[in-house]
Amino acid sequence: MQGRQIKQCGLSSLTLLATFLHCNCLPHSTGGKPFPETAKEIASYAKVAKSIIDLAVYGKAQNRSYERLADFTDTIGNRVSGSKNLDLAIKYMFSALRKDGLENVHLEPVKIPHWVRGVESAVMLQPRNHTMAILGLGSSVATPQGGIEAEVLVVESFEELKKRQKEAIGKIVVYNQPFVSYGETVQYREFGASKAAEVGAVATLIRSITPFSINSPHTGWQDYQEGVQKIPTACITVEDAMMMARMAKRGQRIVVRLTMNAQTFPDADSFNTVAEIIGSEHPEQVVLLSGHLDSWDVGQGAMDDGGGALISWEALSLLKDLGKNLGGLVSVNISNFNLVMESDMGTFTPLGLQFTGSVQARAVMAEVMKLLKPINTTTLEEHGEGIDIEMWMDAGVPGASLHVADSRYFWFHHTNGDTMSVQSPIEMNLCSALWAVVAYVVADLEEMLPR
Amino acid sequence: MQGRQIKQCGLSSLTLLATFLHCNCLPHSTGGKPFPETAKEIASYAKVAKSIIDLAVYGKAQNRSYERLADFTDTIGNRVSGSKNLDLAIKYMFSALRKDGLENVHLEPVKIPHWVRGVESAVMLQPRNHTMAILGLGSSVATPQGGIEAEVLVVESFEELKKRQKEAIGKIVVYNQPFVSYGETVQYREFGASKAAEVGAVATLIRSITPFSINSPHTGWQDYQEGVQKIPTACITVEDAMMMARMAKRGQRIVVRLTMNAQTFPDADSFNTVAEIIGSEHPEQVVLLSGHLDSWDVGQGAMDDGGGALISWEALSLLKDLGKNLGGLVSVNISNFNLVMESDMGTFTPLGLQFTGSVQARAVMAEVMKLLKPINTTTLEEHGEGIDIEMWMDAGVPGASLHVADSRYFWFHHTNGDTMSVQSPIEMNLCSALWAVVAYVVADLEEMLPR
Repeated sequence: MQGRQIKQCGLSSLTLLATFLHCNCLPHSTGGKPFPETAKEIASYAKVAKSIIDLAVYGKAQNRSYERLADFTDTIGNRVSGSKNLDLAIKYMFSALRKDGLENVHLEPVKIPHWVRGVESAVMLQPRNHTMAILGLGSSVATPQGGIEAEVLVVESFEELKKRQKEAIGKIVVYNQPFVSYGETVQYREFGASKAAEVGAVATLIRSITPFSINSPHTGWQDYQEGVQKIPTACITVEDAMMMARMAKRGQRIVVRLTMNAQTFPDADSFNTVAEIIGSEHPEQVVLLSGHLDSWDVGQGAMDDGGGALISWEALSLLKDLGKNLGGLVSVNISNFNLVMESDMGTFTPLGLQFTGSVQARAVMAEVMKLLKPINTTTLEEHGEGIDIEMWMDAGVPGASLHVADSRYFWFHHTNGDTMSVQSPIEMNLCSALWAVVAYVVADLEEMLPR
Repeated sequence: MQGRQIKQCGLSSLTLLATFLHCNCLPHSTGGKPFPETAKEIASYAKVAKSIIDLAVYGKAQNRSYERLADFTDTIGNRVSGSKNLDLAIKYMFSALRKDGLENVHLEPVKIPHWVRGVESAVMLQPRNHTMAILGLGSSVATPQGGIEAEVLVVESFEELKKRQKEAIGKIVVYNQPFVSYGETVQYREFGASKAAEVGAVATLIRSITPFSINSPHTGWQDYQEGVQKIPTACITVEDAMMMARMAKRGQRIVVRLTMNAQTFPDADSFNTVAEIIGSEHPEQVVLLSGHLDSWDVGQGAMDDGGGALISWEALSLLKDLGKNLGGLVSVNISNFNLVMESDMGTFTPLGLQFTGSVQARAVMAEVMKLLKPINTTTLEEHGEGIDIEMWMDAGVPGASLHVADSRYFWFHHTNGDTMSVQSPIEMNLCSALWAVVAYVVADLEEMLPR
């Protein structure tokens, strides 16, 4: 989860690995088959579902998505939007998908942001000398050469900043907001700089958006508001934010020197990487499986979102291995999207599927999920917020996201700790199995998902 | 837990905050009171124990040890053996103990190691460029200026190194040993350099001794063996060790440049910091409560061992607040040590007490622990290994260590994550209560603990 807002950046901010599964099914015919018949049809896939699961979890495809991910991330490392590493990653993946024998492997041009971190540091000078671990935020401006040296104002919330706005003039505002949830707390990272600039602050240091830290700073995008002075902004660790809050509470004067030479360049040219399984019937509809190939410029981007991209590839590999060819290829029109699927919250132990669609479509999906009984992941849930397939869902396409046991996801998210060490081959096997079963059955049903 | 071996370094390697509680009790008279009478005597302390617990956990002393620790660590920061910061820490504590009204606050001269980390870095040059997070190990030599650039040999164990010793010549040996337990796995940090030097390696990089990491390297002492070439040695992260192991398994050539300019100076002058509660009767015996004031040169040393030192102070503060004066002061002879107590495994939720002593003494201590019923920490256990009070215990003095819920202790141990953020005021209240009750009751009993 890159945490970017689709509304602001559009899809162009993501470099997707998208795999298309072409459908067998008739167009979404409202008033088609009666539901009991559809349920019966779905139940008839139990054997196929079992064979996919067996191949992914116990068979010769076991651990393949993990091994592929390890090779990919060990070889490329992280691959931030606009970087040479992202170009390398796309090339790597393009060849790998072709070598895997998938069809119509191609690249689709896309414009993506290009921000470069550069050298950065933050040193506390008073009340004592202390070098802080920081990560500048995506799209932040640089400090003047030599940095900004200023007194610190620590606040716990935007409300406190408002109350104490006179104290903020000329200061570095430190946000020590408690972590409530990513969705709620990330507003401090996104809007903290502009809110502080509005009341005269010269820079902001924001407590990393995580419930747990080993002095580990988190990066991420931030969003300057129109007409507001752009000030440099970075995340500090939970530990340093809490320490400065304690110092401020004791009445101690805190002085920090922040130095950043980040640069924003014009949007860069990049590509979405696409592979397909092409069959013979009903070429006009597709099921899309996706994860994003780009990552932050820290760690290996193994979790965010290497895992999601790799299980999307793996799902097609599994179906290819089992000879499950479907559908047929044409250029894709949004009305022919049957289902868009995204994995961007980790590939830990799968718990179920989050789904957005009509009541009728939900009923169908609930039946599909029953096929996952052998791996005990039959739950169909509502979607959370801030997902990258929102654009399609807003246009009426049913959308599904993988839901995994993600209690530690935000510990590693956007940090140097996002590496292969948080991934497990067994968990990825299970995710791949779920992903392949759902995609295949939805694509193969006689009718598209009702809208 | 600094993980130093008493046998090698003696007590001189620790700067203790030691608090003495002078005893009321008669010398350890074998064949003294019959046990049922002792048990009855101990049971009569229930009301006193309850008042100590109430004061520490619910009363006006609530959160005091946490607040003191926060002020101490925020003000001083980390304080490695031989550093100016350790001098500042000792001064701070000396004044604070006096200001608290404790008696005979004094410093006892001690010689301590003096190793300075300096600048250090490790960069992977092949198969791809990657800057690694490292921490050089205490007592390591420096690299030549410009660093050591060499191919890497990854091994998982000393056994594998032995088998592949011919491959180690001229290489940087990377140990990717799995974490089993600190006691078992720390041998790679302690002896890894000499074992690799014996077979011709030029440096060692050792996977940090922890079950969990967010790209967080751990430092610690290491121990060059007599007559073996001293080679530079540092810990790398679990993540990087695992990545290099994967690369090696794929047959990839790994090249690293390691640069360290660490220096070892002659042992420095320092002090143990001592405070006492002095009473009137039986001046010749003491109960000693201790934690070490020095820390590693990363993080704040809040957990290792600020917490242990601070609850040892807090125990005396609690007894002073309750007017519990005992014993009397003389210079201390080891035969008059009634009990030595150490807290050096964190001050998280207390679970009980680890104890070393005679069968008779253990029976007495089991009765004492029953007094902790109100906070549900009545368990008396055997000691683990590698504790700093071993010297006294080897000389026959009964020894006790605080046992806490330490499942995360080694996540933070010797890292930049050892800060106030891992401490909890509620947990420290409970530790302080346990510490004070045990120390007071043992000191106040009519007879010393049987040996």
